[in-house]
Amino acid sequence: MTPTFAVAEALERCRQAITPALKDAVDRLTPDLRLIASYHFGWTDPAGEPTKAPGGKGIRSALAILSAEACWADPAVGVPGGVAVELVHNFSLIHDDIIDTDSERHHRPTVWSEYGVGAAIVAGDALAVLAHQVLLECSPDRGPAASSALAEATAKMIAGQADDIAFEKRRDVSVEQCTAMSAAKTGALLGCASSIGAILSGAPDAAVMALNDFGLHLGLAFQAVDDLLGIWGDPSTTGKPAGNDLRQRKKSLPVVAALAAAGPEADELRTLLLGEPGTVLAPLDPSQVERARFLVEACGGKEWTAVRAKANLDAALGALERVRLSPVPHRDLADIAVYIVEREF
Amino acid sequence: MTPTFAVAEALERCRQAITPALKDAVDRLTPDLRLIASYHFGWTDPAGEPTKAPGGKGIRSALAILSAEACWADPAVGVPGGVAVELVHNFSLIHDDIIDTDSERHHRPTVWSEYGVGAAIVAGDALAVLAHQVLLECSPDRGPAASSALAEATAKMIAGQADDIAFEKRRDVSVEQCTAMSAAKTGALLGCASSIGAILSGAPDAAVMALNDFGLHLGLAFQAVDDLLGIWGDPSTTGKPAGNDLRQRKKSLPVVAALAAAGPEADELRTLLLGEPGTVLAPLDPSQVERARFLVEACGGKEWTAVRAKANLDAALGALERVRLSPVPHRDLADIAVYIVEREF
Repeated sequence: MTPTFAVAEALERCRQAITPALKDAVDRLTPDLRLIASYHFGWTDPAGEPTKAPGGKGIRSALAILSAEACWADPAVGVPGGVAVELVHNFSLIHDDIIDTDSERHHRPTVWSEYGVGAAIVAGDALAVLAHQVLLECSPDRGPAASSALAEATAKMIAGQADDIAFEKRRDVSVEQCTAMSAAKTGALLGCASSIGAILSGAPDAAVMALNDFGLHLGLAFQAVDDLLGIWGDPSTTGKPAGNDLRQRKKSLPVVAALAAAGPEADELRTLLLGEPGTVLAPLDPSQVERARFLVEACGGKEWTAVRAKANLDAALGALERVRLSPVPHRDLADIAVYIVEREF
Repeated sequence: MTPTFAVAEALERCRQAITPALKDAVDRLTPDLRLIASYHFGWTDPAGEPTKAPGGKGIRSALAILSAEACWADPAVGVPGGVAVELVHNFSLIHDDIIDTDSERHHRPTVWSEYGVGAAIVAGDALAVLAHQVLLECSPDRGPAASSALAEATAKMIAGQADDIAFEKRRDVSVEQCTAMSAAKTGALLGCASSIGAILSGAPDAAVMALNDFGLHLGLAFQAVDDLLGIWGDPSTTGKPAGNDLRQRKKSLPVVAALAAAGPEADELRTLLLGEPGTVLAPLDPSQVERARFLVEACGGKEWTAVRAKANLDAALGALERVRLSPVPHRDLADIAVYIVEREF
C-alpha cells in the first residue's frame, strides 16, 4: 500500500526536520567514519561523492518528533530524540548485516561488503555512542532521562538480537519465546522512538508510558507483517528472493506457530525445515520453499500471524486513547501505524 | 617488572571492590549474553561452568576508584565508574579481536573464535550499552556527567580504532598522525578512567581535568611501551610471537619514527615493510622480522619511542601535582603509572 497523502506528508515534514540535525551529528565523526556513515544513510557514494540513494523511511525519527508534538511541544524538542533513535537503528542495521552476511540493503552493497567487516563493526559502534552524546548534550534537564530510556531500549534490542542468533541453532522455539524475542528486537526501540519526544517535552509519566506502549505494540505488529512478507511478500516489493525466510529456514512467527500445530502437515513441515537432529542444513531449494509455504499456511501459521498483527495494531491504537494527546499528531501517529501494518502481503 | 607490594595491594583492593559490582551488572544481561561475557571476563568456561581464568589486570577500574579516593570520596563512589570503564574496555577488546582476527587472548580462545563472529559483535554491543545504564542509574546528580564523559572518551577510542584500520592501507602515516591515533585509541579511555571517580565525587573541574590529563599521558606512555613490546618483547611475557607487530607490518610508533628518518637504513626498512605500491603484502618471515627489528633500532625508532614513553610518564606524574589530592591514593596512582610504563622491554 502506498502511504496516504496525510502519512506521506507527515513523514516528509519530519524527515525535513531530522535530516540536517542527523547530518550535523554525523559531521562530528572523524573523516573515515563519516565517509562510511554518509554512504550508509544514502547521502554519498562509496568514495564520498554526494548522491541521492534511497535510505530508510525515517519511521522512527518521525515517531520521535510526533511524540513531542502529541505532548503539545514544538517539533524541534523531539529532534534530538529522533536523531538518536535513527542513529541506534542504523547502528543495529550495520551490525545485523554483518551478522546475517547480507550483502545488499536498499539495492546497494551493505557497509561491510563495501568497506570490510572491521570498518563496519567500528562504524556501528560509533553511531551507537553518538546517539548518547546527542541526547546528553541536548538538555541538562531532560537529556539524561532520554538517554536512559534509549540505553534500556537498546539493551533490549541487543538481547533480542542475541536470542535471534541463538534460535537459529535450536529446534524447540516456542511461540511465546519467539514473541518475546520480537518484542525485544523490534518493539523496544519503536517504543522508545514513540515516547522519547514526550520525555524530552517533560510530559507526564502516563503520557510517556502510553506512547511507549503504542510503539511496543506497533513493533510487534510490524514484525508480524515483516514475517508474513518474508514468506508471502512480492520479491519486487521486498527486494529479497521470494520466500527468503523459508529458504533460510528462519524461525519466524508464522513458522513457529505452524510448527506448534499437530497433524501430518505439521510433521511434514518439521521434517522439511528442521531436518534430522545434528545435521548441517543447506538452504531450501525453490520447490521445497513452495511446499513449506503451503504447509505453513495449511497449519494455520499465516492466519495466526495476520490475526496477531491486527490485534497488536488495535492495541497500539488503543494505547493512544489512554491519555489526552494533541489531536493532529495523534492522528498522524495512528495513520503511520495503520500504514506500517497494512503494507501489502 | 613485577608490581611492587604497594601496587599489587592497591590493584587487589580495587579488584575486590569492582568484581561483585561488575558481576551484578553482567547478571542483568540475558542468559546467552551473560554466558559470553562471563567467559570473556574469565569467570566461567565456554559452557558456563565456574572457572578461574586469568582476566585483565583491572587497571582501568582501579584508576576509577583511586580517582574518587584522590578527591577525598569513599571508594564506593568510584565503583560504578570503574564498572563502566571496564565494560567499555572489554567491549572494545571483544570487537578488536574480531577486527584483528586474533584467535587467543590470555591464552584462551577469543569470544568470536569460541562463539562466532555474530555473537561476539552482539556481546560487545551489549557491554557498551550496559556501561551507560550503570552510570545513568548510579546517581541522578552526577551519573549523567559521568556518562557524557564516558561517551566522549568512547567516541574518541572508536575514532582511534577507525584510524588504526585506515593506517594499515596507507604508506604515508606521519609520527604526528600515529601519536594522535594512539592518544585517541588508548589515551582517551585511560583519561576517562582516571577522572570518572572524581566526576562521581563532585570534585572541582580543575581536579577532574588534572586527573584526565594524568590518564591521557599515561595512555600515551602505555601505548609507547606496548609498541616497544610488540617488537622487542619476550614472547613468554607478551604471549604473542616475537616481533609480532613487525611480522604484521604494523605501523606502530617505533616503525613510523624509523620510517621518518633519512639514509640507506631507512630506505631498506621502507622497502622491507611497505613493499611496492599496489602489491598485496604477506606477513614478514622470521629472518625479515630480525632484519626489520635491527633497522628500526638503527634508525632510532626504539630510542625515540622509549624517550617518548618516559616523557609521557613524567607528564602524567606532573599532572597529579597540579591540584591537591588525597596523599595515599595520589601515591597509588603514581605507583601504578610507573608500574605500567616500566614493564620489561
